Amino acid sequence: MYKLLSDLSIIEVSSFVASPTIGLYCGQMGAEVIRVDHKVGGLDYDRYLLTSEGRSLSWENLNRGKKSVALDLQSGEGRELLVELARTTGQVVTNLPEKSFLSHTAMSEGRDDLVSVRIMGWHDGRQAMDFTVNAASGYPLMCGPEDWDPATAPPVNQVLPAWDFITGAYGAFALLAALRHRDTTGEGSEVRIPLGDVAIGTMANSGAMAEMLYRGGDRERLGNAIWGAFGRDFRSKDGVRFMVAALTPKQWSGLIEAFGVEQEIAALESELGVRFADGDTPRFANRHRLFELFQHAADGFDWTELSQRMAKAGTTFEKYRTMHEAANDPVLVANNPLFGPSPANPSGFEYPATRSFANMPEKPVGDPAPAPYLGQHSEEILAERLGLSSGSIAKLVDAGIVRLSDKE
Amino acid sequence: MYKLLSDLSIIEVSSFVASPTIGLYCGQMGAEVIRVDHKVGGLDYDRYLLTSEGRSLSWENLNRGKKSVALDLQSGEGRELLVELARTTGQVVTNLPEKSFLSHTAMSEGRDDLVSVRIMGWHDGRQAMDFTVNAASGYPLMCGPEDWDPATAPPVNQVLPAWDFITGAYGAFALLAALRHRDTTGEGSEVRIPLGDVAIGTMANSGAMAEMLYRGGDRERLGNAIWGAFGRDFRSKDGVRFMVAALTPKQWSGLIEAFGVEQEIAALESELGVRFADGDTPRFANRHRLFELFQHAADGFDWTELSQRMAKAGTTFEKYRTMHEAANDPVLVANNPLFGPSPANPSGFEYPATRSFANMPEKPVGDPAPAPYLGQHSEEILAERLGLSSGSIAKLVDAGIVRLSDKE
Repeated sequence: MYKLLSDLSIIEVSSFVASPTIGLYCGQMGAEVIRVDHKVGGLDYDRYLLTSEGRSLSWENLNRGKKSVALDLQSGEGRELLVELARTTGQVVTNLPEKSFLSHTAMSEGRDDLVSVRIMGWHDGRQAMDFTVNAASGYPLMCGPEDWDPATAPPVNQVLPAWDFITGAYGAFALLAALRHRDTTGEGSEVRIPLGDVAIGTMANSGAMAEMLYRGGDRERLGNAIWGAFGRDFRSKDGVRFMVAALTPKQWSGLIEAFGVEQEIAALESELGVRFADGDTPRFANRHRLFELFQHAADGFDWTELSQRMAKAGTTFEKYRTMHEAANDPVLVANNPLFGPSPANPSGFEYPATRSFANMPEKPVGDPAPAPYLGQHSEEILAERLGLSSGSIAKLVDAGIVRLSDKE
Repeated sequence: MYKLLSDLSIIEVSSFVASPTIGLYCGQMGAEVIRVDHKVGGLDYDRYLLTSEGRSLSWENLNRGKKSVALDLQSGEGRELLVELARTTGQVVTNLPEKSFLSHTAMSEGRDDLVSVRIMGWHDGRQAMDFTVNAASGYPLMCGPEDWDPATAPPVNQVLPAWDFITGAYGAFALLAALRHRDTTGEGSEVRIPLGDVAIGTMANSGAMAEMLYRGGDRERLGNAIWGAFGRDFRSKDGVRFMVAALTPKQWSGLIEAFGVEQEIAALESELGVRFADGDTPRFANRHRLFELFQHAADGFDWTELSQRMAKAGTTFEKYRTMHEAANDPVLVANNPLFGPSPANPSGFEYPATRSFANMPEKPVGDPAPAPYLGQHSEEILAERLGLSSGSIAKLVDAGIVRLSDKE
């Protein structure tokens, strides 16, 4: 854990992926992140995969390093405690609807410099999730094999909830932007981030929306090829699949060298009357001939030799791994300083845990922290932030308004 | 443009997607973002799609609202001007390698509170791009139709450069975190964000890494189904494809109501001895029977009727659109306040332009700004930031060290 945000406390009332990710990233940068949940756990407390003891490995990873307060959020008293925590703390992240007890208006009463960041579905208030905004974005109908007939090709959903993760990182950015503004001006902010706008807006920001409007139609189906440049998946003689990208002059010359195809490339250039070194355009326009040429060359090498040649020539490439292979790959995980030793996870299962994606060579990095047990910090937070005595807290626990740790 | 960051100027030395996205987001929040490029344009200046006049619609969208300075970055003098701009400004975003003239060490000489955010490939300095880190992450071998044989199924690359966009949003967050730390302590930061760590770290943060280690193998292939919950793509009688997700109790009951399958669900529950309302687990475990049941019901409705029923019942669903359809959808674009009127784009092509994903009901939003012409602000920035006289700048232009606007 880096200490960049160690002066910051955040109340997080979250479920699923986007909203919890905001707190995760802030926590890894040193913020105190206090996740407040309904006393039996939020909608995401049982997200797959569950261990045999019923602990969610999803929740355990998305809530690493946070504190947990568990309240009866179906009761007026529990809700009041949460609103008071938000007000006292001054900054809140949530994906509860604006039309709920946790509206910005309710929280900012008596605290008009409050900063709230709210993850929404669509901008107009309609519900949405990563899977549904993805359907609207156009990407699923562009993915999948090149030889699929566009008229009948099914959509291909992404297993990665990319919109959730983009929204989470963007939400962390927007939170800090609003806090910076408050530091300068004293003014609070109500920040709303619709998942649907992140999807359709990213499609536009990438240039794809302008492209389709300029074309007056959809882009041709490309399969695994890179759009507008040279790159695709190939297979070595011994069947290893790998991705290659060659966009810069150095990447392109390195690729030719690694595959040992100087003469074949020269012959093809002569046949087609082009110079591939001129840039992306001739390489993309003639990609099918080039793919054939490079795959033919790859058929002549086992992976060990070919990968060594590519590494030596400075080719940009990567072997496809299954997720289980990736998890067990020492280069990616065990020997990667991104990961630290397993903390004492609620599941009891031990595995490497992430640090912040950002690394800072000059600053102490620390080790990853575990996710909390549900309600583990209820007592601490209610005492510290709301000044409740241990007697009052005990009464709230007896009344079922506050729950302490669900560790068994 | 919101004014949350209007006190901030950033030097950006970027190419491709992740790094420019940092400046894009900061600019949409009011920061002055000064993109400095080699005088003929960076590696991304000709990224597809190009208009018939050769303007990149990709560059035009990823660099909206920025200023542009064009220098001969292959010359010592041009490089010195850039390092001096970085030093004077105090915060820099780049994807140039650490081992380049734009190292943190070089920039922070005489400016030890400098904040730099550097997008890298892999943490160990190896080159990588979105396409290659994706291959390593495990996701491409999990995507694609459920009936593909896992032993021979090809990888499915994502058309969305998700890792680039997650990295860009995270980079904007990390930049503001480091600036906040400097505001508090006076201390600078060298922040490095490897694209590869974002990919493998996101896989871990989602819980998937722990899942695969806990299983001791890979997850089964799911096609378009949602992992661990109920959801998949369906088709209406008239052939419209749509995605449905039902994770919460309300989503599930709304789905049954919309499809009019109360009796069929009750019969299936009775046959299988389960209660689907109990949560994700029975619905996911019996998903194939449920998919069959819901698809059979969908076969009885045209899209107009079924979508109205789903909207009324509060189902979470979305129609799949091609990207061209999405770009022309009034709900997504024309009537969505995310988009503003077309500014004067360098391409001359007019189309809706995005505002910030975050919207703030209480603050003036402003209209989107165009991308600059290459070098459009060279004179202004060199005069303002480095105090160069118009005579000195004219000499630098004559010597080919500085280039003014490439508008023709």
